[in-house]
Amino acid sequence: DFTRALSEVEPKFGAKSADMQAYYRGGMVNYGEPFESMTETVNRVIEQMKTSTKTPLMSLLISGEAETGKTALAAHLANASGIPFVRVISADTMIGMSESGKALEINRNFMEAYKSPLSLILIDDLERLIEYIRVGPRFSNQVLQALLVLLKKPPPEDKKLLVIATTSIPLLLEDLSLTQSFSLQVSCPQLEPSSPSIKTVLTDSGVEEQDASAISQAITQPIGIKTLLMVTEMARSNSGGERIDLNIFLECLHTVGY
Amino acid sequence: DFTRALSEVEPKFGAKSADMQAYYRGGMVNYGEPFESMTETVNRVIEQMKTSTKTPLMSLLISGEAETGKTALAAHLANASGIPFVRVISADTMIGMSESGKALEINRNFMEAYKSPLSLILIDDLERLIEYIRVGPRFSNQVLQALLVLLKKPPPEDKKLLVIATTSIPLLLEDLSLTQSFSLQVSCPQLEPSSPSIKTVLTDSGVEEQDASAISQAITQPIGIKTLLMVTEMARSNSGGERIDLNIFLECLHTVGY
Amino acid sequence: DFTRALSEVEPKFGAKSADMQAYYRGGMVNYGEPFESMTETVNRVIEQMKTSTKTPLMSLLISGEAETGKTALAAHLANASGIPFVRVISADTMIGMSESGKALEINRNFMEAYKSPLSLILIDDLERLIEYIRVGPRFSNQVLQALLVLLKKPPPEDKKLLVIATTSIPLLLEDLSLTQSFSLQVSCPQLEPSSPSIKTVLTDSGVEEQDASAISQAITQPIGIKTLLMVTEMARSNSGGERIDLNIFLECLHTVGY
Amino acid sequence: DFTRALSEVEPKFGAKSADMQAYYRGGMVNYGEPFESMTETVNRVIEQMKTSTKTPLMSLLISGEAETGKTALAAHLANASGIPFVRVISADTMIGMSESGKALEINRNFMEAYKSPLSLILIDDLERLIEYIRVGPRFSNQVLQALLVLLKKPPPEDKKLLVIATTSIPLLLEDLSLTQSFSLQVSCPQLEPSSPSIKTVLTDSGVEEQDASAISQAITQPIGIKTLLMVTEMARSNSGGERIDLNIFLECLHTVGY
Amino acid sequence: DFTRALSEVEPKFGAKSADMQAYYRGGMVNYGEPFESMTETVNRVIEQMKTSTKTPLMSLLISGEAETGKTALAAHLANASGIPFVRVISADTMIGMSESGKALEINRNFMEAYKSPLSLILIDDLERLIEYIRVGPRFSNQVLQALLVLLKKPPPEDKKLLVIATTSIPLLLEDLSLTQSFSLQVSCPQLEPSSPSIKTVLTDSGVEEQDASAISQAITQPIGIKTLLMVTEMARSNSGGERIDLNIFLECLHTVGY
Amino acid sequence: DFTRALSEVEPKFGAKSADMQAYYRGGMVNYGEPFESMTETVNRVIEQMKTSTKTPLMSLLISGEAETGKTALAAHLANASGIPFVRVISADTMIGMSESGKALEINRNFMEAYKSPLSLILIDDLERLIEYIRVGPRFSNQVLQALLVLLKKPPPEDKKLLVIATTSIPLLLEDLSLTQSFSLQVSCPQLEPSSPSIKTVLTDSGVEEQDASAISQAITQPIGIKTLLMVTEMARSNSGGERIDLNIFLECLHTVGY
Ligand SMILES: Nc1ncnc2c1ncn2[C@@H]1O[C@H](COP(=O)(O)OP(=O)(O)OP(=O)(O)O)[C@@H](O)[C@H]1O
Ligand SMILES: Nc1ncnc2c1ncn2[C@@H]1O[C@H](COP(=O)(O)OP(=O)(O)OP(=O)(O)O)[C@@H](O)[C@H]1O
Ligand SMILES: Nc1ncnc2c1ncn2[C@@H]1O[C@H](COP(=O)(O)OP(=O)(O)OP(=O)(O)O)[C@@H](O)[C@H]1O
Ligand SMILES: Nc1ncnc2c1ncn2[C@@H]1O[C@H](COP(=O)(O)OP(=O)(O)OP(=O)(O)O)[C@@H](O)[C@H]1O
Ligand SMILES: Nc1ncnc2c1ncn2[C@@H]1O[C@H](COP(=O)(O)OP(=O)(O)OP(=O)(O)O)[C@@H](O)[C@H]1O
Ligand SMILES: Nc1ncnc2c1ncn2[C@@H]1O[C@H](COP(=O)(O)OP(=O)(O)OP(=O)(O)O)[C@@H](O)[C@H]1O
Ligand SMILES: [Mg+2]
Ligand SMILES: [Mg+2]
Ligand SMILES: [Mg+2]
Ligand SMILES: [Mg+2]
Ligand SMILES: [Mg+2]
Ligand SMILES: [Mg+2]
Repeated sequence: DFTRALSEVEPKFGAKSADMQAYYRGGMVNYGEPFESMTETVNRVIEQMKTSTKTPLMSLLISGEAETGKTALAAHLANASGIPFVRVISADTMIGMSESGKALEINRNFMEAYKSPLSLILIDDLERLIEYIRVGPRFSNQVLQALLVLLKKPPPEDKKLLVIATTSIPLLLEDLSLTQSFSLQVSCPQLEPSSPSIKTVLTDSGVEEQDASAISQAITQPIGIKTLLMVTEMARSNSGGERIDLNIFLECLHTVGY
Repeated sequence: DFTRALSEVEPKFGAKSADMQAYYRGGMVNYGEPFESMTETVNRVIEQMKTSTKTPLMSLLISGEAETGKTALAAHLANASGIPFVRVISADTMIGMSESGKALEINRNFMEAYKSPLSLILIDDLERLIEYIRVGPRFSNQVLQALLVLLKKPPPEDKKLLVIATTSIPLLLEDLSLTQSFSLQVSCPQLEPSSPSIKTVLTDSGVEEQDASAISQAITQPIGIKTLLMVTEMARSNSGGERIDLNIFLECLHTVGY
Repeated sequence: DFTRALSEVEPKFGAKSADMQAYYRGGMVNYGEPFESMTETVNRVIEQMKTSTKTPLMSLLISGEAETGKTALAAHLANASGIPFVRVISADTMIGMSESGKALEINRNFMEAYKSPLSLILIDDLERLIEYIRVGPRFSNQVLQALLVLLKKPPPEDKKLLVIATTSIPLLLEDLSLTQSFSLQVSCPQLEPSSPSIKTVLTDSGVEEQDASAISQAITQPIGIKTLLMVTEMARSNSGGERIDLNIFLECLHTVGY
Repeated sequence: DFTRALSEVEPKFGAKSADMQAYYRGGMVNYGEPFESMTETVNRVIEQMKTSTKTPLMSLLISGEAETGKTALAAHLANASGIPFVRVISADTMIGMSESGKALEINRNFMEAYKSPLSLILIDDLERLIEYIRVGPRFSNQVLQALLVLLKKPPPEDKKLLVIATTSIPLLLEDLSLTQSFSLQVSCPQLEPSSPSIKTVLTDSGVEEQDASAISQAITQPIGIKTLLMVTEMARSNSGGERIDLNIFLECLHTVGY
Repeated sequence: DFTRALSEVEPKFGAKSADMQAYYRGGMVNYGEPFESMTETVNRVIEQMKTSTKTPLMSLLISGEAETGKTALAAHLANASGIPFVRVISADTMIGMSESGKALEINRNFMEAYKSPLSLILIDDLERLIEYIRVGPRFSNQVLQALLVLLKKPPPEDKKLLVIATTSIPLLLEDLSLTQSFSLQVSCPQLEPSSPSIKTVLTDSGVEEQDASAISQAITQPIGIKTLLMVTEMARSNSGGERIDLNIFLECLHTVGY
Repeated sequence: DFTRALSEVEPKFGAKSADMQAYYRGGMVNYGEPFESMTETVNRVIEQMKTSTKTPLMSLLISGEAETGKTALAAHLANASGIPFVRVISADTMIGMSESGKALEINRNFMEAYKSPLSLILIDDLERLIEYIRVGPRFSNQVLQALLVLLKKPPPEDKKLLVIATTSIPLLLEDLSLTQSFSLQVSCPQLEPSSPSIKTVLTDSGVEEQDASAISQAITQPIGIKTLLMVTEMARSNSGGERIDLNIFLECLHTVGY
């Protein structure tokens, strides 16, 4: 299937590749048009980084609702890019750090990247990194400023850097001048109720053709791929066997707030 | 009675089980439908954690008015789950700590949990942990961010983690993106004036059938189970003997603000 | 007189009892109904703590306008309770401490109390402890959170704790969820202009029957017992002899802002 | 003259008395009714402190517009009181101190005072001590809380303490609960245009009878005694000789903002 | 071509000159009127600094939309100025520093400059240096104050200093009194849709005459030179060969948010 | 010319006098009425300080628009005063200092001054010292409070102190109670378009009579003396020779924002 096909393209980098795969341990499903179009845009930029010398710094923001697969997409494409130096900057390794500690840590990652001819830095969940909360709003200005500066700073001569970041709140981050600091922005959409994407995801996830069709028709609002996969798993484990009871699926969907 | 029945299901884990029981020292009363429905939902998720490997991280928020029995319910079900590694994260062990100290302590508990194949972390009273106060609002952003990050971070390969948390202010925590960070939410209701629940709780608590009926009819607003049990005890101790004087009960009810 | 009678009920605990008495050095006057009703409510809770095992933690808030005798009442009843372990938590021992220092100190007092089978903690003037000021409002969130947590935390098995606190601003503290954290609330009123309470206080304080009557009739607004006692003393010292000149009394009353 | 007369009443305490006199180095002028009435009120309280044992803590706030002589009045009466232990708490000895440093220093002064049978603490310019600025408003909550606590804390048994403080902004300090924390408040007024006070101050200050009359009639708004004395001195030094030119006086008055 | 011509004027200062060139590594294109007029204004001030002794301190602010070439312009002219001591103050060397650390570092650079008879300090991106964010607004007051002071402080006798700074938000910085602190302000405009500037930039950048014309006509909004150069490079790398496909160019333009 | 004349009056104090002269290195021009009137007011106060003993502390605020010559005026008159102890307190020596560090440094300067029989402290640019920014407003309350206290604190016996300060925002500083803390305020105006002041300044600055007249007539708004001198110098250096081209002058005027 497609998942296998995708993983074959991935270069073998031992531990590092394994690290990246942790972000899409459930595998990647090619659910059709929106997925392919996003993949193409990102890959075009990756290609540009590899071939051109005139744009030593490019940055790309993957934005979309919660649970739409942003992190998995970014990690998967980074892993498949063949760029040897890949680093992930994520809030989960900095819990409890001071603001300046975080800014320094982010800076350190960029410094490290500047040493390779071509590097890729993946910044997962910008809002968590800058400790953003809508009320106020509150955020770490020191971390934000570090990002704003580093997203504009050209790497040293003969070095190239691609930054890929993810966020669920691109509009709110515009007020912080963060969204605009990226060279380009890619939208990662929810799966549409009437599209074939949902059925594709379900069958790929092991749901029987028939059940997949029934469920697909029963979903009436856009849904994130991560949510869909979780609810499917809840329904499966509650249905007892491998087959999924439509009513149980809908009940589970309701439980998670739909 | 039911309390005894319930405790029989509990696995024997020595000290740990005793610790958990401290949160429902007064015992658990099965007061009918709402209690059974909550129990079922939580147990279904526990079951899913035990059997499925596709959802290594699930989180569940028990929300309800003050004194509705949220902590007792969570502790009781955690204890009865048979999950060997159970940890409670609660503000009362962190009084006087700095914000980053609290964030680190929470992180430490998660790290510890990641070492077991299947763990359960009970976070009691989210609002106290993040030091939330409605005016402002004020809260510890550092602790909040630690929670937001950890509620999204998948455990390492082959490890599974279930997080159960309680709160009295789910709507206010929505503004902090906290409520939405949980996979599912369970509502813990007050006891309804006209329902048989109140009488069940009273008789289980040792109130004579007749008195229980009288009291039950005299209560005209929803009441938390913890409040009901406390007022019953006040009334009993003020009535002199074991029987409870209805007027004294109503007086006590009034004293506590009803 | 009544003052003597009251002091006879007090258990003899050497130094500790003396400490508590410092809060009502001027003695306690039984000024009738409101005083007796408050005393009764508090004593009922004390009795419940002594006899019942089902409510190991009770908390009671004495609220009332400035100078109505809240602190004296709390200290007097605590002293008379016969509860062996009694501790006072008051802002005056924590001047210049950091917020976390105060939170730790409060916590330490509770930990200490948890060691006795039955303890009483008197928290005087909640607003000073949490450094509350109406403009803003400003307050120490760290101290407030410590109180909110400790007022909910059940003591260890077989231990019982009664918390009695005082405040002049119960409504403002509601915005901080503090007032609601107490099991019950008792109102400590001002002395009413037309009530016999004022005359009782005056004569008990050594004012001649006749002067007391005159003064009593001249007071037209509710007045705190502490204010009344101070003005009486000012008037006495300004009148030259033991008798109190009504005009001088009214003048003094005016000087203190009535 | 009166200045000499006043200074004769002052007890001889060597250095300390000299210290107090620094606050009214220009001498004290008895400018009639308002001055005598203030003096009487303060002295009555001082007398009460000396004779009565029932009010071990009294506090008095002298409030009035800028430059009305509040500090001089307080220092003069404190010095004249004959109370052996007198301490001044003033912001000028605490410049650059941390907030908690100031709170501790204030506390230390009270502790020191508690050691004497009868003490007087003069707190000059409350607004400077609490670092108050109208915009915001901003102030040191830690210093304010120290004052609020200490103004309510009774001295140890057999000790008595009188606190006299000054302020130019009694109404603003009401929002901070500070004004109300004093037992009584005394208003220190500006000199009234039509009153004989102005002429008295001028002649006492060495202005010729005739010039004093002319100036007195030319002043049409209330004026603080400190301002009047400064303008008089400016005019004198600008007039060349000892006689004061009315036009030069008015010009000087205008220069200082009248 | 012009780029070469420009670089010939640059004095040879070894490493330093190379450092400055890093800010316009892609070279400088003379795109006609607005560029020449800006160059002339700046050069006139540079000339004044060299010849006159009466204006030992001059400061010049280059302001313009994002990506209009401000930094490149400033660095290029600084490098070409022949002023021996040139220093760049930029936020990217101060990530993670404390506010006072930044203020001291800025001060240090000025102190260093004061040692040379004639120095030039280039402050790149004022908003990043003062950590400005529109919401609030938030900024480092300590760094801002250091700038405000240093922009007014005359160098020591016989020393001269020229400060050139860049910003994208001159109007917002007016609220901070920063824009006004400069002696003069130069506007760096976007390239106008109908002007020949765009075609000049494109052909200089290696785009074939014909393609340049087509693209130039297809651009309908003002565009920053940096954006134009980046999109051109994206389009080139996506077009496969050296020739640029107009549709691909427009697609790329759309991708970056136009 | 007048500049020379003025400098002759200055007492010779070696290094110190040189230090003060740095603030008006371009010399002082007597531009007529407003300058003479300001000089007279300040000198009258200086005279009063020297002769009278009844006003040991006087403070004078020189306020006026940016670039009107406030600092030069203050420094010049201080230098010419003949007062032996003169100290300048200015933000430029305190960059990067903590707030309390600044407060202590200011205090230290006053303490030092208190040691001389007659001292003069010049506080340049109050707004920079207190780190004032209109938005918020933000300012260092600790530094502000130090100033408020020191501006009211009388020097020790037999010592006299004159404080002269400058500010461009007297109205904004009123909200901070700072403007009112000075004994008197002197306004330093811009040069008026129709007044002979402008021509005087120009000719004194070496502009030919004829050019000076032409320029003087071309200026239509009030202008600060510092701005006028700078623009004149810019125009001279741009005109090529010593003569100034009117059009170039107007162009330069426009460049600096007029
Ligand atoms: N085509 C796909 N694209 C993205 N994710 C996919 C795809 N196919 C399968 N998945 C799975 O869906 C999940 C997507 O979750 P992911 O954490 O990436 O979402 P997210 O948008 O980053 O969520 P959040 O908003 O919580 O950060 C992963 O488990 C991944 O294995
Ligand atoms: N079925 C039940 N569910 C919950 N609590 C029960 C039940 N039966 C009895 N109880 C008792 O009721 C009390 C519930 O109190 P608990 O502290 O859990 O309430 P809570 O909602 O967490 O209160 P708070 O809002 O103060 O945190 C416990 O003492 C528990 O022993
Ligand atoms: N029946 C009484 N109840 C309370 N206080 C009494 C009584 N009889 C006499 N007193 C005296 O009245 C005074 C009451 O003052 P207390 O400090 O308790 O008032 P408070 O309400 O706590 O004041 P505050 O609002 O300032 O804290 C004490 O001096 C006490 O000795
Ligand atoms: N009767 C008087 N009362 C007060 N001050 C007097 C009197 N007679 C003369 N003075 C002189 O007037 C001055 C009063 O100044 P003082 O500093 O006390 O005023 P203030 O109200 O405290 O001013 P501020 O508002 O600045 O604190 C002193 O110099 C004092 O010597
Ligand atoms: N005439 C020119 N003026 C300015 N830049 C030019 C010119 N010709 C070519 N360039 C190139 O255009 C780019 C301008 O980018 P630069 O970083 O200076 O823009 P900026 O306005 O400072 O952007 P930002 O707002 O992000 O700080 C540089 O790569 C530079 O080499
Ligand atoms: N009569 C004068 N008064 C003041 N300054 C003069 C006079 N004649 C010449 N000058 C010159 O004018 C300049 C005045 O600048 P100064 O720095 O004093 O202005 P400022 O008002 O303090 O400016 P800022 O608002 O920036 O602090 C000095 O260079 C000084 O030499
Ligand atoms: Mg994600
Ligand atoms: Mg609970
Ligand atoms: Mg009290
Ligand atoms: Mg005073
Ligand atoms: Mg730039
Ligand atoms: Mg100046």
